[in-house]
Amino acid sequence: MNRIFSASSRLMRRLVFGGGRRQFSSSSPSYDTVAFLGLGNMGLPMAVNLATKSDYTVVAFDVSTDALNSAEKAGIRVAPSLEGIMDNPQTPPSMVITMLPSDAAVDSVMSILSSNAPPNTSFIDCSTVSPTTSRQWHDALAEKGCLFVDAPVSGGVKGAKDATLTFMVGSDSAKLAENWMIHCVLSYMGSRIIPCGGPGSGAAVKLCNNLALAAQMAGICEAMNLGEALGVDPNILSEVMNTSTAKSWSCEVNNPHPTVAAATKSPASKDYQGGFSTKLMLKDLQLAVGAGRNNQVALPIGCAISELYNMADLRGLGDKDFGVLLQFLRGK
Amino acid sequence: MNRIFSASSRLMRRLVFGGGRRQFSSSSPSYDTVAFLGLGNMGLPMAVNLATKSDYTVVAFDVSTDALNSAEKAGIRVAPSLEGIMDNPQTPPSMVITMLPSDAAVDSVMSILSSNAPPNTSFIDCSTVSPTTSRQWHDALAEKGCLFVDAPVSGGVKGAKDATLTFMVGSDSAKLAENWMIHCVLSYMGSRIIPCGGPGSGAAVKLCNNLALAAQMAGICEAMNLGEALGVDPNILSEVMNTSTAKSWSCEVNNPHPTVAAATKSPASKDYQGGFSTKLMLKDLQLAVGAGRNNQVALPIGCAISELYNMADLRGLGDKDFGVLLQFLRGK
Amino acid sequence: MNRIFSASSRLMRRLVFGGGRRQFSSSSPSYDTVAFLGLGNMGLPMAVNLATKSDYTVVAFDVSTDALNSAEKAGIRVAPSLEGIMDNPQTPPSMVITMLPSDAAVDSVMSILSSNAPPNTSFIDCSTVSPTTSRQWHDALAEKGCLFVDAPVSGGVKGAKDATLTFMVGSDSAKLAENWMIHCVLSYMGSRIIPCGGPGSGAAVKLCNNLALAAQMAGICEAMNLGEALGVDPNILSEVMNTSTAKSWSCEVNNPHPTVAAATKSPASKDYQGGFSTKLMLKDLQLAVGAGRNNQVALPIGCAISELYNMADLRGLGDKDFGVLLQFLRGK
Amino acid sequence: MNRIFSASSRLMRRLVFGGGRRQFSSSSPSYDTVAFLGLGNMGLPMAVNLATKSDYTVVAFDVSTDALNSAEKAGIRVAPSLEGIMDNPQTPPSMVITMLPSDAAVDSVMSILSSNAPPNTSFIDCSTVSPTTSRQWHDALAEKGCLFVDAPVSGGVKGAKDATLTFMVGSDSAKLAENWMIHCVLSYMGSRIIPCGGPGSGAAVKLCNNLALAAQMAGICEAMNLGEALGVDPNILSEVMNTSTAKSWSCEVNNPHPTVAAATKSPASKDYQGGFSTKLMLKDLQLAVGAGRNNQVALPIGCAISELYNMADLRGLGDKDFGVLLQFLRGK
Repeated sequence: MNRIFSASSRLMRRLVFGGGRRQFSSSSPSYDTVAFLGLGNMGLPMAVNLATKSDYTVVAFDVSTDALNSAEKAGIRVAPSLEGIMDNPQTPPSMVITMLPSDAAVDSVMSILSSNAPPNTSFIDCSTVSPTTSRQWHDALAEKGCLFVDAPVSGGVKGAKDATLTFMVGSDSAKLAENWMIHCVLSYMGSRIIPCGGPGSGAAVKLCNNLALAAQMAGICEAMNLGEALGVDPNILSEVMNTSTAKSWSCEVNNPHPTVAAATKSPASKDYQGGFSTKLMLKDLQLAVGAGRNNQVALPIGCAISELYNMADLRGLGDKDFGVLLQFLRGK
Repeated sequence: MNRIFSASSRLMRRLVFGGGRRQFSSSSPSYDTVAFLGLGNMGLPMAVNLATKSDYTVVAFDVSTDALNSAEKAGIRVAPSLEGIMDNPQTPPSMVITMLPSDAAVDSVMSILSSNAPPNTSFIDCSTVSPTTSRQWHDALAEKGCLFVDAPVSGGVKGAKDATLTFMVGSDSAKLAENWMIHCVLSYMGSRIIPCGGPGSGAAVKLCNNLALAAQMAGICEAMNLGEALGVDPNILSEVMNTSTAKSWSCEVNNPHPTVAAATKSPASKDYQGGFSTKLMLKDLQLAVGAGRNNQVALPIGCAISELYNMADLRGLGDKDFGVLLQFLRGK
Repeated sequence: MNRIFSASSRLMRRLVFGGGRRQFSSSSPSYDTVAFLGLGNMGLPMAVNLATKSDYTVVAFDVSTDALNSAEKAGIRVAPSLEGIMDNPQTPPSMVITMLPSDAAVDSVMSILSSNAPPNTSFIDCSTVSPTTSRQWHDALAEKGCLFVDAPVSGGVKGAKDATLTFMVGSDSAKLAENWMIHCVLSYMGSRIIPCGGPGSGAAVKLCNNLALAAQMAGICEAMNLGEALGVDPNILSEVMNTSTAKSWSCEVNNPHPTVAAATKSPASKDYQGGFSTKLMLKDLQLAVGAGRNNQVALPIGCAISELYNMADLRGLGDKDFGVLLQFLRGK
Repeated sequence: MNRIFSASSRLMRRLVFGGGRRQFSSSSPSYDTVAFLGLGNMGLPMAVNLATKSDYTVVAFDVSTDALNSAEKAGIRVAPSLEGIMDNPQTPPSMVITMLPSDAAVDSVMSILSSNAPPNTSFIDCSTVSPTTSRQWHDALAEKGCLFVDAPVSGGVKGAKDATLTFMVGSDSAKLAENWMIHCVLSYMGSRIIPCGGPGSGAAVKLCNNLALAAQMAGICEAMNLGEALGVDPNILSEVMNTSTAKSWSCEVNNPHPTVAAATKSPASKDYQGGFSTKLMLKDLQLAVGAGRNNQVALPIGCAISELYNMADLRGLGDKDFGVLLQFLRGK
């Protein structure tokens, strides 16, 4: 598992990078500014972690005034406008982090930023988007001498707040390897940085994992429903499955059955509050299905689950943990 | 996990049951005869284990003359006919084990045997059948003072040969608890005996586990196919998923991608030879879907996967490991 | 279309069969008694039509006392018990018509009746059941010198009341051809009698038609939903489809969109009251899917629609016209 | 059906438009030039019909040199480049017809053409594309004083050659009504022009119709397969369905069963040669599913069928009539 770097030790980072950074900080202040765009449920706590725990100067922006106010309250410096970020004559950011809700938002923000980005700027996109979008921006920025990295995350809002996110990272491997600042910056916001391969591979791995996860959860939901209808105690059923081939995160950690979830206090025990929302799973499945379509990959089960989540969302379950599929299948 | 008895120690069994059994053996020889019906890929090695490793007298039968010949070659005593098993005046079996291919076969064999079974005979059905079938025979035999136990297995042909099967056991719990011979007999053929609850619950748990397993496998197949089409290295993809929420037996132990499977020499590395066959998974899914229908449980994903396996089977892939779904989805 | 006999003229029937029947009536009264079993929403009006419009003596039975009371109020003679029907020494029925809700009910009733049915009794099963069930009873009764005919209907409660049902008839063709009483009796209850082939073919054709119908309706529902979301006027959309390849009964006669249905006053215009219920379509789809499973036929779309109707039923939409799928898909 | 204009009479067109056009022809030749872009299987015969039967000057272009050569052989004047079409100082086209394979191709061609299109140019896009694409170009061109019309067709290559296509037309209704040249030009290539509503509604109606058609065909394929497995004569089954609620184009005109198709010599009788290809149906379904996703419309059945066609295409059946689904489901 040597490809998985664990950012377990802040001390280690200080030893390896810290001094250097601080020296750079005085002599070449441009290394110290990081722009952070997108201050939603995920972006804001990530930006706060980076701003408060590191020595980087963080300049943030969001189209929502509310988000900007929240950021200022949290002590983060905000930019007057998106366009202004690159134009700042004193501290043009050496790195731009984006955490945006859609491919369209990434396209729109990157179009503006890339138009006047100085060479050697690094762009780290933590949004969950199509691998095609990631690759296109990687190629476009490479022409300008910039590096674009797709680095979508897992770990949810809790991971964002606790700085325990996992980053699935795709980019030009050689350039990524020599750009230590990227590892350094990400390690202030997460605990695992997983190189997945070339440009777009981070985005691809995230979609693939969540596609498999959705199928896993759907299977557990159907099994729990069937078992209960057949008179099997839900706790026994989940316990047996967890010692057998059906063992999985959706059965063991995030079991969608309220009775089983009571023991772990996972979302199903709290009317599916918290957790990974149906809406976000639907978004990821639609990205996966779209990627399948564009690449002639048949995804009949991914498609079928995507439509179930679509129907669950239309029925008002979009904000609940994606384990709520169990209830949706029961007609709730 | 105290409900899961591990039959790890033969010595322990000897200490606990062995003496008793041998004494019974001389004074009440009826305790010693076990009829074993169904000598297919699974049944034969199970019967061989029981006959050669225990002190029980095993009398076997199968409708196939070839199977009977194989059994005799393996040193197992065979009965002249199904009807003759209960009529034996000297050694009416105190226990009957069935390992049959379908609900219809179980119904047919049990109809004959139950008609003249003496009270206190135990019936252990290791076949994978509908929970309804199990419950019906449990009730019918209870009226005759007999105990019927549904005890389907997991572990495959290898587990049958190595006596490492897992038995998922459903029956009248009180009667099961006091009938130590059942535990004893099963422990000669498997390494785990899992009580799942009342009559039919063993059958139900097996179907639920395999339903969840099929969904999990389908998700991994689609994720591996999508990942490869998007340019991700299959080994990296599986490795990342195994550190994340998609971690599962189908990803880690039985990965359906030939490249990934090469490391573990699992079926996908050998053109899907060995493993759990598409045909058997299809059978289990159809039983699960049938149980869903009879109990008003919606199983849209189970149904969809069942049809995919149906199509794969129609295309001649029935004997390959169920991970061959990956190839089926690629149009192979 | 010469295989489709239209029972358009009562006069013609009188000319061809009527005199003969009346003569038989006096000399051999046994020709005149028809037993009718199953007096539900469909069976009762069918029995009433036969009893009041023909010269046959109709003796009816149902397990529900309410149904028997309704039948008596409608002037139909009821039998004291199911067993009593064949035992009547004076008028053993020469024909038995069954209109029952399930395969299990048909099996149960036929087991009783077939045990003491005199040779030459005709059994006409109008229930919608599995073709396998029909074939089994055909074969069992042929051994007793009786004819079993599967004759499921289309046309619904309205067709039953108006005697405009369509009968899809399967049986031994030669015997069916020479048994004019069957055609005669059916023509009092319906307006079309369609020979479909050998035993079970009537049941099979009914399931196939409804399988295709369900897919057609699902397609129209999705198309109407998509069209409206894209801003197309529902009336224009249905009108164009009705001049194009999507033209179908589900688009033209029973359009599931309330706005379109307003013009024809079809069920969707009345909150899906009346019409062919979701529950019955679900039953037919499950029979079709079961038949597919037993015959190694892949029915991925039939399965998927079956599960959608299952979910719609679980959500309380079972009694509404099956066009309510449009609303179910909208999250209603 | 007064919204459906039938272009049945060439004489009528001459009387209504012809003189006027010829007069315009001499005095203002610019009215007479129509650019035709996209000379594939559909585009070439459409362009030939327009060029040879009308008095318009047709100037054609395609990126394929082969297509250009074929066009020249057919007597059509070809432009030296796409860019050159609008730059022609003598005869800037008053109308541009596009018949292109994808949204991307339409975007690319329209980007070039729209950049220097003079006001009042009409753009008729006969490609099958997303309604969103159509609406975007409508709005973009309206700003330049031009009219964009989405006018996808049905009728296939045969309809294109015979000038019997159906055009489903969406645009600004008022402007469309006053622009008689559009009706005139289309009537040289088709026999039906169906106004579907505002911009994008032609594209939307085409997708909705084909979505419903795919479900219809899938239902007929599954019904024919099930019926045959149950021993029903395919001709009887299709005949009965055609007198019942399953009656449809896919059952009656384009039945996917070879035996049934023999009577009508439709594609299934010729190994699925000719007809509407699996690849094109897949494309339309993917557009429909994409439109569903962008508009929060659940299309579970459309999705499922789309994936079946995807798998059929991956298995090399892409060029066969979409009725080949019957064979795909059989494992062929």
